[in-house]
Amino acid sequence: MKFHTKIYLLFSGYLLSVEKMSPMSAVKSRLLPAITTVTSVGVGVLLGVQYERKALPFPSVLAKTSSPSDEVDTRTVPGHLVPVPPMPGPQSSPGKAGQIMRYGFPGLTDLKSREGYVVSYDRRNRNPHWVFEHLTSAHVRGDSDRQQCDFKEDETIHPYFRATNWDFKRSGYDRGHLAAAANHRHSQTAMGDTFYLSNISPQVGEGFNRDAWNRLEMYVRGLTKQFNNVYICTGPLYLPRKEVDGKMYVKYEVIGRNHVAVPTHFFKVIACETNKGELILESYVMPNAKIDNNLPLKNFLVPVESIERASGLLLFDRIPRNAFKAINGRQP
Amino acid sequence: MKFHTKIYLLFSGYLLSVEKMSPMSAVKSRLLPAITTVTSVGVGVLLGVQYERKALPFPSVLAKTSSPSDEVDTRTVPGHLVPVPPMPGPQSSPGKAGQIMRYGFPGLTDLKSREGYVVSYDRRNRNPHWVFEHLTSAHVRGDSDRQQCDFKEDETIHPYFRATNWDFKRSGYDRGHLAAAANHRHSQTAMGDTFYLSNISPQVGEGFNRDAWNRLEMYVRGLTKQFNNVYICTGPLYLPRKEVDGKMYVKYEVIGRNHVAVPTHFFKVIACETNKGELILESYVMPNAKIDNNLPLKNFLVPVESIERASGLLLFDRIPRNAFKAINGRQP
Repeated sequence: MKFHTKIYLLFSGYLLSVEKMSPMSAVKSRLLPAITTVTSVGVGVLLGVQYERKALPFPSVLAKTSSPSDEVDTRTVPGHLVPVPPMPGPQSSPGKAGQIMRYGFPGLTDLKSREGYVVSYDRRNRNPHWVFEHLTSAHVRGDSDRQQCDFKEDETIHPYFRATNWDFKRSGYDRGHLAAAANHRHSQTAMGDTFYLSNISPQVGEGFNRDAWNRLEMYVRGLTKQFNNVYICTGPLYLPRKEVDGKMYVKYEVIGRNHVAVPTHFFKVIACETNKGELILESYVMPNAKIDNNLPLKNFLVPVESIERASGLLLFDRIPRNAFKAINGRQP
Repeated sequence: MKFHTKIYLLFSGYLLSVEKMSPMSAVKSRLLPAITTVTSVGVGVLLGVQYERKALPFPSVLAKTSSPSDEVDTRTVPGHLVPVPPMPGPQSSPGKAGQIMRYGFPGLTDLKSREGYVVSYDRRNRNPHWVFEHLTSAHVRGDSDRQQCDFKEDETIHPYFRATNWDFKRSGYDRGHLAAAANHRHSQTAMGDTFYLSNISPQVGEGFNRDAWNRLEMYVRGLTKQFNNVYICTGPLYLPRKEVDGKMYVKYEVIGRNHVAVPTHFFKVIACETNKGELILESYVMPNAKIDNNLPLKNFLVPVESIERASGLLLFDRIPRNAFKAINGRQP
């Protein structure tokens, strides 16, 4: 399988090692996605509720900080130093998350739902974790104008974790869309939303963002002619590779004073639905590097499981894999 | 400030660049933690509910996969290939997260609430994101026996993302606790829970896990003698450093076939509460490396904001910073 060999190389030795996993455990492991997802969302909800319902020890201060338009740092306002009331003996109910994290919950991944996409933002790497889109032929047509869009900071993200246009200045990298602007031509707002920097990763410009990756994006838009509904999950990868000492290392550049990570690779997993309700799945990984323009897109097909392992995400896991008519061009 | 210079060096140049941020934006940015946390939990809850309430297209198949005891991979069972019913035109309600992610939600961070701690698991790096504990003098006393505890896989984590004991074999790294075993001597179960590999990171043994880091853990337990309540957040860091080409890179080893990341540093942020309700805060960062045993712990104090920026987390953000009586030994 020539093209598999090629993609294994591009994938920097990552697949070689993950593919060695025993097939038995791989089979069993497909069982759990739904459960795990439900569980983690469930726990999130539980903790969220528990956290929200916990009486706040600083009502006056927190009332102030809850207003986004309030520009005063209440910590510097005299008279706001309220003593913390002693709390009841903690031994009485060990292990209550709300009690353990009484003074703050470090946070879940930031989730933003926009007109054309949903993004989970990686606050540590100042990149998206993943961006989800749903496209139809109607979404990708229209007269929205890219020239009217500007790259903009996402002010819903805490300033500590927010990528800025300055971070990209003189970095040598493009501000690469994960939800592509041209996927949302039907609405100027939807197109504009794709210019939030929370939908952007640093991408190699020539040979990648403007070439191979753009070809993949055009291919995805083309799928809306054949299929009624096209669902896309796009995200960055930080793949390890073996160095001369024989050990595996993850290594990536960070740019700007906010240390925006430069992913080593990007993935795109696409589920297409026909009008008969049949589904096909395709999953791609491309290195964030100059790519030979003659390489066909199918060279970048990789098993979706490999992307799941590398990204820490479960993709289209509500559909049993054998319910797809085809995965990467073959019957599952 | 001699010790600051030292810790800056240990912190691999990270702080130097983040400290350059304008003080104005730093001040303003302290306003948003509460809002951001509430927003992200809120959105999480919203999405979770929306996701859960969405009618599932495969009731029979999903009923099967929802049972954890079910060992059959339904994808390989004949007769389970149910055609997907065509869905109503998506243009009617653009931007609905449940619709965009109809076939699967890639997941939030895994959250686990155990008897003695709460952990947020990083599925990409197969390490905790953070571990939260609440200690009192009663928690750290008792006759629980470490010898009765074994390191164990956390079976609540999907096999794709789960660290195993095999991953650590011959890696040269200790299986280092983030919630320390000895913090939970009051209960054999609580101590046993700290041996889940979801509470473990690969740590340098000699000079770190068994020495400097252990000294820090003992110091924290000692705080329960002075303070009624001690809250601790512990986690890994993956800090960038400047290389010879003048660019900043994050680089870390990954071990085992599951590619468990070896963090470059670890942090510990501690909030102590007196019986008068006064609070003090201390925040430490140590490199995951052999550390000179003569260095005092205070050399590893760093501004908590630096840890927040580097980790992507907001720590003890429900308390306005000026409400602490002391932060790292000084009045805020």
